Amino acid sequence: MPFHSLDELRSACLDLPAGDETAAAAVAGRQDTLTKPQGSLGRLEEIAAWLARWQGRAMPRLDRVKVFVFAGNHGVTAQGVSAFPPEVTVQMVANFSDGGAAINQLARVAGADLAVIPLDLDHPTGDFTQAPAMDAGAFLAAVSAGYDAVGDDLDLVCLGEMGIGNTTPAAALSAALYGGDVRRWTGRGTGVDDAGLARKVAAIEAGLKRHAASLHDPLAIAAALGGRELAAILGATLAARRLGVPVLLDGFVCSAAAAPLAKLHPAGLAHALAAHVSAEAGHRSLLEALSLKPLLDLGMRLGEASGACLAVNVVRSALECHQRMASFAEAGVSEK
Amino acid sequence: MPFHSLDELRSACLDLPAGDETAAAAVAGRQDTLTKPQGSLGRLEEIAAWLARWQGRAMPRLDRVKVFVFAGNHGVTAQGVSAFPPEVTVQMVANFSDGGAAINQLARVAGADLAVIPLDLDHPTGDFTQAPAMDAGAFLAAVSAGYDAVGDDLDLVCLGEMGIGNTTPAAALSAALYGGDVRRWTGRGTGVDDAGLARKVAAIEAGLKRHAASLHDPLAIAAALGGRELAAILGATLAARRLGVPVLLDGFVCSAAAAPLAKLHPAGLAHALAAHVSAEAGHRSLLEALSLKPLLDLGMRLGEASGACLAVNVVRSALECHQRMASFAEAGVSEK
Repeated sequence: MPFHSLDELRSACLDLPAGDETAAAAVAGRQDTLTKPQGSLGRLEEIAAWLARWQGRAMPRLDRVKVFVFAGNHGVTAQGVSAFPPEVTVQMVANFSDGGAAINQLARVAGADLAVIPLDLDHPTGDFTQAPAMDAGAFLAAVSAGYDAVGDDLDLVCLGEMGIGNTTPAAALSAALYGGDVRRWTGRGTGVDDAGLARKVAAIEAGLKRHAASLHDPLAIAAALGGRELAAILGATLAARRLGVPVLLDGFVCSAAAAPLAKLHPAGLAHALAAHVSAEAGHRSLLEALSLKPLLDLGMRLGEASGACLAVNVVRSALECHQRMASFAEAGVSEK
Repeated sequence: MPFHSLDELRSACLDLPAGDETAAAAVAGRQDTLTKPQGSLGRLEEIAAWLARWQGRAMPRLDRVKVFVFAGNHGVTAQGVSAFPPEVTVQMVANFSDGGAAINQLARVAGADLAVIPLDLDHPTGDFTQAPAMDAGAFLAAVSAGYDAVGDDLDLVCLGEMGIGNTTPAAALSAALYGGDVRRWTGRGTGVDDAGLARKVAAIEAGLKRHAASLHDPLAIAAALGGRELAAILGATLAARRLGVPVLLDGFVCSAAAAPLAKLHPAGLAHALAAHVSAEAGHRSLLEALSLKPLLDLGMRLGEASGACLAVNVVRSALECHQRMASFAEAGVSEK
């Protein structure tokens, strides 16, 4: 287990490697020689440079792309915050194993390996309206599970989650980290009705009140109001940075899970792209708070890393153009 | 040659097959049984139904995806409207053949075949500030070339173009079809400076004035102010509709090329999706005029079907989810 105390984890979050600007500049230089008007591939050109910067390679690669879906259960479901019963988390983990979920299909199209990591599903987190979701030990164990999942042999990771009820901790984290009216961060998740939405808002307000003393510390917020799969995403995001692996973040829950790293370090998520903006209320605001501009905006709100996975072929396209296009000189094409 | 007169072409544009609403409804019905909250795949669910509607198959397929890049040369380049010399069109066609352009890489990632169709590159269209770009014969030949390129064995086509100077006819078509200030439709294309932009605006204004008598007729507009590759895209879009092949439109030039079909028939582009909105000024306004909501918005402005190709894996992902996800009953997952 890489982290035995919140202070150890905090130190790791504050001591992040910078990007390789030499590699990024090499990409930008090469882009300007390729047979297209300069800048005409738009964000694809930025993505190629981003891969180089965070892989530390002037010619990046995408041989090994891996999707992680972390799964957790949530005590706050006792407050009636989800349209689905909590047993769906474990049922969906079985569906992932059987290849029947959206993410199985999306990972295949993306050419990515899929790893599903259930986190102590038999023991939901505490109901944060009554107690901290996790004590320090449980939180660090979940962060460590995410951290240890990421290997330095990977070229890109997609992070996502499954956990009935988990848009509630995601909204609670967002509200605790960035403030403002709780309703701004709270959406319908899997599809709660108006009464369910009111129960979500009330639960989050109760959680913020109960844990008010912890709200100065992003890691304490993540322990008190978060969930195991969110903590694992935080750990995986941190590991990826330290191992030179660029990250595609999925939707609202995933972005909220990684947000404490951005709160602790001003460039904490520089190695991460927001793969998409989801239809879940709060995600757009959260991405703005994180200064992340999403690649895709397709009205999705499934989680499971589905949006992250969908962006993999955009990243792959960016790299293939960068690697294999001919230069003006090579192709004998006249310049401006 | 399928069209020997503008009247024959006009009749074909007015007599378009409707979509298969039974197939589309079957997709929507199946989507609601799959293991995800209803609607949570957002536009991916709409795309699956769109494929079904226009392929006329309750279970659509994407075995044969083909990218067409039509290439043409433009007399209006004499007005100094492009940052690149006109010989670049033929040089880029050679680059496509050699596999060195962006579209070669993007088609490979998309799993699509690529066909490049040069249209009489040795004979640029007329300079529309002085004369019609094409007479009826040349226009119908180009429309027919596009029409004949599309086979009924295809499951999806991506349409795109190459032609130095062709954002000028695209802007002229947009202005002629939808009105408003010419400057609203006129952008920097491959990267003209302010003086070049002023020359573009002046050329388009001159063209609109010279051909004022034709501006009541979308096909006459396409002949007088368009270009061969734009006419071919119009023909390919029409053929695809009649053959049951859904279409991904690329950027500004491609959208302007297909726009006469929408002007002639209120549902003329219902079988087409706007794959992306480009950074070229005018494209966003044009898509609004066409009531097309782009799938991607990545700041691209290359043409070549690059944006269309990038959307193929989004469409593929939509279909794979639709085809292969388990239902709640199959997976034993509890419903709401």
